[in-house]
Amino acid sequence: MDLEQVLKRRALIFDRSITGNLTHRDPKKFYDALRYVPLSGGKRLRPIITMLSCEAVGGVPEKTIPLGLALEYLHNSTLVHDDIIDGDDIRRGLPTTNKKFGLPYAILAGDALIGETYRMLSYLAPPDLNAVTFKEIIRSIADAAKRFYEGEAMDIEFAHRLDVTLPEYMTMIEKKTGQLYWLAGKCGALIGNGSKREIQGLANFGLLFGLMFQIKDDLLNLDLDQSALGKQLIGSDIINGKRTLMVVHVLSHLNETDRKTLVSILGNTKASQKDVQKVIALFQQYGSLSFAQKKLDQFREQAKQELSILKESEAKQVLLALTEYSITRKY
Amino acid sequence: MDLEQVLKRRALIFDRSITGNLTHRDPKKFYDALRYVPLSGGKRLRPIITMLSCEAVGGVPEKTIPLGLALEYLHNSTLVHDDIIDGDDIRRGLPTTNKKFGLPYAILAGDALIGETYRMLSYLAPPDLNAVTFKEIIRSIADAAKRFYEGEAMDIEFAHRLDVTLPEYMTMIEKKTGQLYWLAGKCGALIGNGSKREIQGLANFGLLFGLMFQIKDDLLNLDLDQSALGKQLIGSDIINGKRTLMVVHVLSHLNETDRKTLVSILGNTKASQKDVQKVIALFQQYGSLSFAQKKLDQFREQAKQELSILKESEAKQVLLALTEYSITRKY
Repeated sequence: MDLEQVLKRRALIFDRSITGNLTHRDPKKFYDALRYVPLSGGKRLRPIITMLSCEAVGGVPEKTIPLGLALEYLHNSTLVHDDIIDGDDIRRGLPTTNKKFGLPYAILAGDALIGETYRMLSYLAPPDLNAVTFKEIIRSIADAAKRFYEGEAMDIEFAHRLDVTLPEYMTMIEKKTGQLYWLAGKCGALIGNGSKREIQGLANFGLLFGLMFQIKDDLLNLDLDQSALGKQLIGSDIINGKRTLMVVHVLSHLNETDRKTLVSILGNTKASQKDVQKVIALFQQYGSLSFAQKKLDQFREQAKQELSILKESEAKQVLLALTEYSITRKY
Repeated sequence: MDLEQVLKRRALIFDRSITGNLTHRDPKKFYDALRYVPLSGGKRLRPIITMLSCEAVGGVPEKTIPLGLALEYLHNSTLVHDDIIDGDDIRRGLPTTNKKFGLPYAILAGDALIGETYRMLSYLAPPDLNAVTFKEIIRSIADAAKRFYEGEAMDIEFAHRLDVTLPEYMTMIEKKTGQLYWLAGKCGALIGNGSKREIQGLANFGLLFGLMFQIKDDLLNLDLDQSALGKQLIGSDIINGKRTLMVVHVLSHLNETDRKTLVSILGNTKASQKDVQKVIALFQQYGSLSFAQKKLDQFREQAKQELSILKESEAKQVLLALTEYSITRKY
């Protein structure tokens, strides 16, 4: 299977739906800001996983389009507001909404994208979908959104702490990165009328996929291949003081001297590329990189296990390929 | 009828529901920020009008509680984010969320309050409510929220313009202030199983109530009694350059000299109280205050007309009293 082609073809379905859905109206600058992130591309992984989860339990894939868009808009809203919170100027090689349109429009665009999530849910409301399924979907979204914001708040708090524990870190990424994928798996299977076991399995798969994606992102941030992709610098996470799995791991193992070195560089916006390499060397020395890789391998096995309960189908094969992709991708 | 007592008693129902609903959890600072505005009081007029609209068409008032809370949370989210957009430090005599908890938490608190709106809707979803009514409610909320953000964007744009027309101004406040009250009237009547005519009438009433409330707020901002209520200064709207009905009116009537005076003071943060009085004198001279008062009288008559189709009930009497209150209140 050429996964890249499969993903591109699937993403196109949602690219087109979004273009048709987010029409341009007055006030112009507001709609420019609102459409900016949704129309700037992205992998559309959340709607794709929603659709695949529906297909994998024997459902009609097209039925998931409003839900897929709802999750994409919710995700987009978090990107727009995250960039304000993190003070980021660049995303996907382009100026962030905040940078391009200013703070007031970035706040409004994010809020309106959350509003678009509702609008999409209105297309799923009974009688179009049965009442029990819809209720489960709207509750799941409300609960997941709440956990997402909790995770975001934990992430903000962590930036001031050097004693973040591994369980705390895992809870944070389960909330911040896992929830939207958990929703994708769960709600896709719900719309597809999956069995209880299938719904649970795809929800778990989604969560694990999110965790793998996050940890791999953190590893890729250290990689020398990144500079071409609009990401700021090699190791920008280190310069920004982000508490990644490797940072959390290394902080609980360092000796006093190495700790001082790390603390002087972590979150130091004046740190040089040489400083960044020092931190990466510490990650290597203390086994933090291989620890992260082991976590990835462990989650991959769990994710495959969750998928093993599904009947054979093309969708299942794509989900398996996505599992591999999430931890082997180069960007 | 002692309206103040009636409103206080009704508000207490929602105060208690909010306290029970927004429980305190970890991460502590996030939940502190989230609960800050909803628990800081306020008149709870949107949930009260939702409940009264249901009662006025013969429905069971308690059924509107989740919807009332949904509208209150949506309103609260707009207050939290508005204060960021406007750079305000004080609301209701207290530091704003932004001022007290910082920008990241203010953004998250507002987002999470929009999320709470969903959670409340999940309590209304079928089979608890019939599917057609629910669908109409969720669509109405999505549409109204979109119009609200459009109105907010118009308000931001207006701050840079001296040629805002009266129809533009009316469109802006219909969107920004009218929509949540429109929802309160419409959705309250929907839950109460009102007739088509009653639903339309209460929706119109809500919108008019919002317009009156806004214009009266703009007038009260010029009043000398305001300083006790935590509002910053007499005429803070003038100092902040806000395009109120009076400003829009006076700008289309001024001679060149007076226009220069106005433009030098409007939005000038160094303007003195004497300058503010000069602008108020211009409002008087050009009939802008009486123009605003005439608009209020006109909307009052329209609002009463909309209510006249309802059968007699205590709820109808309270809605009539609220109409008077919206334009005669002293704060």
